[in-house]
Amino acid sequence: MSKPLILVSNDDGITSKGIRMLVEVMKEIGEVVVVAPDSPQSGMGHAITIGNTLRLEENDLFGEIKAYECSGTPADCVKIAKHFVLKGRKPDLVVSGINHGSNTSVSVLYSGTMSAAIEGAMESMPAIGFSLCDYSSDADFNHTRPYIKQIAQQVLDKGLPQGVALNVNFPPKRNEPLKGIKVCQQAHAKWEETFQERFDPNGRRYFWLAGNFVNFDKGEDNDEWAIANNYVSIVPCQYDLTSHPTIQEISNSWDFS
Amino acid sequence: MSKPLILVSNDDGITSKGIRMLVEVMKEIGEVVVVAPDSPQSGMGHAITIGNTLRLEENDLFGEIKAYECSGTPADCVKIAKHFVLKGRKPDLVVSGINHGSNTSVSVLYSGTMSAAIEGAMESMPAIGFSLCDYSSDADFNHTRPYIKQIAQQVLDKGLPQGVALNVNFPPKRNEPLKGIKVCQQAHAKWEETFQERFDPNGRRYFWLAGNFVNFDKGEDNDEWAIANNYVSIVPCQYDLTSHPTIQEISNSWDFS
Repeated sequence: MSKPLILVSNDDGITSKGIRMLVEVMKEIGEVVVVAPDSPQSGMGHAITIGNTLRLEENDLFGEIKAYECSGTPADCVKIAKHFVLKGRKPDLVVSGINHGSNTSVSVLYSGTMSAAIEGAMESMPAIGFSLCDYSSDADFNHTRPYIKQIAQQVLDKGLPQGVALNVNFPPKRNEPLKGIKVCQQAHAKWEETFQERFDPNGRRYFWLAGNFVNFDKGEDNDEWAIANNYVSIVPCQYDLTSHPTIQEISNSWDFS
Repeated sequence: MSKPLILVSNDDGITSKGIRMLVEVMKEIGEVVVVAPDSPQSGMGHAITIGNTLRLEENDLFGEIKAYECSGTPADCVKIAKHFVLKGRKPDLVVSGINHGSNTSVSVLYSGTMSAAIEGAMESMPAIGFSLCDYSSDADFNHTRPYIKQIAQQVLDKGLPQGVALNVNFPPKRNEPLKGIKVCQQAHAKWEETFQERFDPNGRRYFWLAGNFVNFDKGEDNDEWAIANNYVSIVPCQYDLTSHPTIQEISNSWDFS
């Protein structure tokens, strides 16, 4: 039996620590091809490159594994992998990450990591985004390894519903071992932004975006709760944004004369 | 009674024809403040500017109306409007557009226009993205005007559910008048991409993303059908991406040993 074909991407860029770990784990279960951004793309959401050119260069960062760096966004990487690099071969699995930092709750919308996974789902490929809730540059990824392998293997074995990709987040390495996996919903929360006003050496004003995460969700069935309680969180995410109850509500209550 | 405060943004940039029309209509129903990108941001999805600085400059493009151009993405514009420009005043309505080109179906995910609206919803502000399904530079926007006013007025009067923004698309100007409004769902469709391979004057390879839209949806309850049949489409969009049925499915069928 031939090994499954696994496409690996991320948003921190092809040289990041997280993607190296992900490639190592995927090598154990499949044939791996890497197409990842040539520079960090955090916060790129589901951006794609239109009205501009893309570069794609093969490199040998991962030894015998085929790897390409692309000048575009994570979503571009999955598109160019599917439609150019892999010419006609469809990956059995798309994995993205491991992201350096949390993609729980509403952060999923800003996440380049998850946009690569959702782009995979849009192409009818089972897809998973992995993130570690630790922003430090020397973050320890080792505790994520057995879970990544198990989750990827489950998705290869069981598939995913059409239109759904998984958003997997790991707690930072703590003294106690991880408690297991919670399949849960996106927490109801938001970022409360501030804009720091500064002045450049020429006296012109500029701003830095900063912000605090505010969690409104008191439930125990969401990803914020799972991470806080040392569980791996899995949120199945769909790209059909339609709010079906609202269709009915508007149709009933609006008055178009 | 004081006039409602309306924040206007877009993704085609502050000098585009579409935002001028939107400002003109909004002036008729409220106090308008414009915060829009200083350059085109099409395809930016829900990208935000992190790890880099932002510029914000006041300008007089709209006469007596307060207007600011921002170096960031559409989502950045809404954030900096809420947290800096409008210091403490919360808009009664956020409108984005009118986009030069369609944002029906899955294009909603790549759309900077809709990311501004969804960012509004994330900040608990009623929000609408408007797009015209006509890419030509001399597109006629006039047939959209009465509908934009009516839809904005309905949202001001009736509000929207928490976490929902409207994705409104207009058919291109045709010989027959618009048939009315359809509140509908996001069509099941995709972009089938191609990457054109070219070589620059130095012999280095580059790519252009191109693609065809492929509609799989045979129903009459979706935005593609509405536009093809000369209706204005309204899709209520939510930013909670959780696929609730999949939570149950995975919990029942996966085997974690």
